[in-house]
Amino acid sequence: MTMALEELEAKAKAAKAASHRLAYLSTDAKNKALHNISDDLLTKKDEILAANQFDYKKAEASGMNTAMLDRLMLDSSRLEAIAQDVLAVAALPDPVGEIFDMRTLPNGLQISRKRVPLGVIGAIYESRPNVTMDISALCLKSGNAIILRGGKEAIHSNSTLAKLVQEAVIRAEVPEGAVQFIENTDRALVNHMLKMNDTIDLIIPRGGAGLIKSVTENATIPVVSGGIGVCHTYVDKSADVNKAVAIAYNAKVQRPTVCNALDTLLVHAEIAQLYLPLIAAEWAKAGVEMHCDERALSILKPYSSLKLVPSVDEDWGKEFLSLVAAVKVVNSLNEALEHIERYGSGHSEAIIAEEYGTAMRFLNEVDAACVYANASTRFTDGGQFGLGAEVGISTQKLHARGPLGVRELTTYKWVIFGSGHVRP
Amino acid sequence: MTMALEELEAKAKAAKAASHRLAYLSTDAKNKALHNISDDLLTKKDEILAANQFDYKKAEASGMNTAMLDRLMLDSSRLEAIAQDVLAVAALPDPVGEIFDMRTLPNGLQISRKRVPLGVIGAIYESRPNVTMDISALCLKSGNAIILRGGKEAIHSNSTLAKLVQEAVIRAEVPEGAVQFIENTDRALVNHMLKMNDTIDLIIPRGGAGLIKSVTENATIPVVSGGIGVCHTYVDKSADVNKAVAIAYNAKVQRPTVCNALDTLLVHAEIAQLYLPLIAAEWAKAGVEMHCDERALSILKPYSSLKLVPSVDEDWGKEFLSLVAAVKVVNSLNEALEHIERYGSGHSEAIIAEEYGTAMRFLNEVDAACVYANASTRFTDGGQFGLGAEVGISTQKLHARGPLGVRELTTYKWVIFGSGHVRP
Repeated sequence: MTMALEELEAKAKAAKAASHRLAYLSTDAKNKALHNISDDLLTKKDEILAANQFDYKKAEASGMNTAMLDRLMLDSSRLEAIAQDVLAVAALPDPVGEIFDMRTLPNGLQISRKRVPLGVIGAIYESRPNVTMDISALCLKSGNAIILRGGKEAIHSNSTLAKLVQEAVIRAEVPEGAVQFIENTDRALVNHMLKMNDTIDLIIPRGGAGLIKSVTENATIPVVSGGIGVCHTYVDKSADVNKAVAIAYNAKVQRPTVCNALDTLLVHAEIAQLYLPLIAAEWAKAGVEMHCDERALSILKPYSSLKLVPSVDEDWGKEFLSLVAAVKVVNSLNEALEHIERYGSGHSEAIIAEEYGTAMRFLNEVDAACVYANASTRFTDGGQFGLGAEVGISTQKLHARGPLGVRELTTYKWVIFGSGHVRP
Repeated sequence: MTMALEELEAKAKAAKAASHRLAYLSTDAKNKALHNISDDLLTKKDEILAANQFDYKKAEASGMNTAMLDRLMLDSSRLEAIAQDVLAVAALPDPVGEIFDMRTLPNGLQISRKRVPLGVIGAIYESRPNVTMDISALCLKSGNAIILRGGKEAIHSNSTLAKLVQEAVIRAEVPEGAVQFIENTDRALVNHMLKMNDTIDLIIPRGGAGLIKSVTENATIPVVSGGIGVCHTYVDKSADVNKAVAIAYNAKVQRPTVCNALDTLLVHAEIAQLYLPLIAAEWAKAGVEMHCDERALSILKPYSSLKLVPSVDEDWGKEFLSLVAAVKVVNSLNEALEHIERYGSGHSEAIIAEEYGTAMRFLNEVDAACVYANASTRFTDGGQFGLGAEVGISTQKLHARGPLGVRELTTYKWVIFGSGHVRP
């Protein structure tokens, strides 16, 4: 085993040892740790920004694009916002310790489930140093130990921030070893980490589609992944046209770069002639480019000043993350359902319909983390759903689906109170 | 791609397609399907027993050991018991469709979580043909499509039973393709199946430790595994000695071959002199062999007619699955907790204590699926916990822990009712 592997194994073991004590640490102690982190972010501002400047200049010199550079960059106001976010996590209710399903069995045994942390969470992320703080805060709040492995572009920023977290939490009874940072950015090391089933309980990948795919395909540890949203909005023939315009506009335009934004608009043939010109006119004001199937194209062609492109096969099932929407006219609810079943990524899907049975069929039959009637898919968000800070949005089915809050970083154990009970 | 791989891929796709319709099949239709299966088990008895005889004779000729042969063997009474078990699954409440956490957000959006099936479950098992029926019934009840892949020793039995299930459920509106059986027993095919993340949502391995280890280490699909139980019972100095004798006896002797049976007995030094001879005398009547550490050995040596063996390092953390127990004297609760943390498999752990604080610390600090105060670990069982038929006992932490019932074969989706809502 190489030195780097040995170090990784040792750090994981230390995290696991710490996780046992962390599991029953008081809420007060965990919140104190989070307050310490928030304080230190402000008092150590100069040190953090210097480390970040080092990463930034190096990345800039290596020709990193503007969007990526922006993600990497920290400044005073961003640090203050991160410090505030950590306090917001401290203010959340502690999910650990909740007792549920408690009951007394006919034989007198009292059984219950008690919410406990998962144990050790491995975070694998890319060039956004705020993920270091974000994931650390959420894991600590939920009583989990954490192994952080960020991308090499932000290595100095992440290393400085991780050290800050380690020092801040020790001052608040968090056991030593609870926060681990992997300095080595070798790919091989990540691949090893993804198979450490004995010490790591969950992997959270945070980054682009490539990272998530690679983690999902290689990890034998459970992964809670997501973020890839191919979201459809289906405008039924029974739709209220004003609502349908407002919702599709919101879903596409309000923040086009995120996973819950609209990608494909499906429109019932009987309403397409009326509806498509209206939404197209609104979208045009925001600069939306429409990739239209033949029927949509023939309806919209007469209108000038629209950005129309004939659709190609690759447009269906594509996550655009920009001001582009695929548009298709369908003959029926069934055709819409089949399209979504085939091309959806199981993230967020919406129907706009005034006919009760149609709306109910859609909600019932579409298999996705979030299904909407008469609302924008942009609501798929931990904060919007009232879960507090968001760990991510899961498009897989096991454990938790849709927006993940701190509760989703926990599991339960069965606690059984007997008085000498033996099994007959 | 080989023919076998192509066939596997095609079957998985068919299962996935069926799963969408199966997800909203009525409870009545699912129960009808289960009743059909139960009926057919009886009417097709001769055919099933003939196929099983074929497997049995082949296995016998190849020198399979008696215990394995017994697992493989079906007869009239076993078939009748299986038919009864299927009816018992039909009688369980349907977990699908439960609505929970429903509330109205400040903006008027109504959000809720709705329980839905996982989708497609892959079952990988060995030579027990009853697993074919057992897993099929549980998956169908919870609305999941299923891909069955049993061991080669039982291939004719399993194939006959799978065909029976396929034919029985079609007569009850279950969509075609919902039950798939893989005839080919190549290992390579299983390894491919374990990585089919796009079509299979969950893998359930059923069999010995080797199978479970191999599946867990190779699967990139989520696995709900378990079955390996290294269970400790700690007798505190404050224990009621009579309860401690009854419980340790029950935990070791009542059914020694299962995962929730006692493996290691930890005894506080201050009670060991009194307690060890009493439990040893009881265990001796049942033929229990005790692998004792030095201190336990010195206490028990004066007593004749005990099966005493000096313990070796491998005894700690070993799942005996037989009338053998490792025995260790510890100086404190802390030492017991450390031993369990080091050697436990996270299955079931018990303390026998009358001192309140001691019992509570044990329940609080031990990290296992089930923690007991003053009761036998043998209670860890879906039936005993009131969950109905058991899918397995999970010793991993994600999704579900401990005994798994049909509810644990489901997930949820968020259902959101709006009236034109857009995100500000």
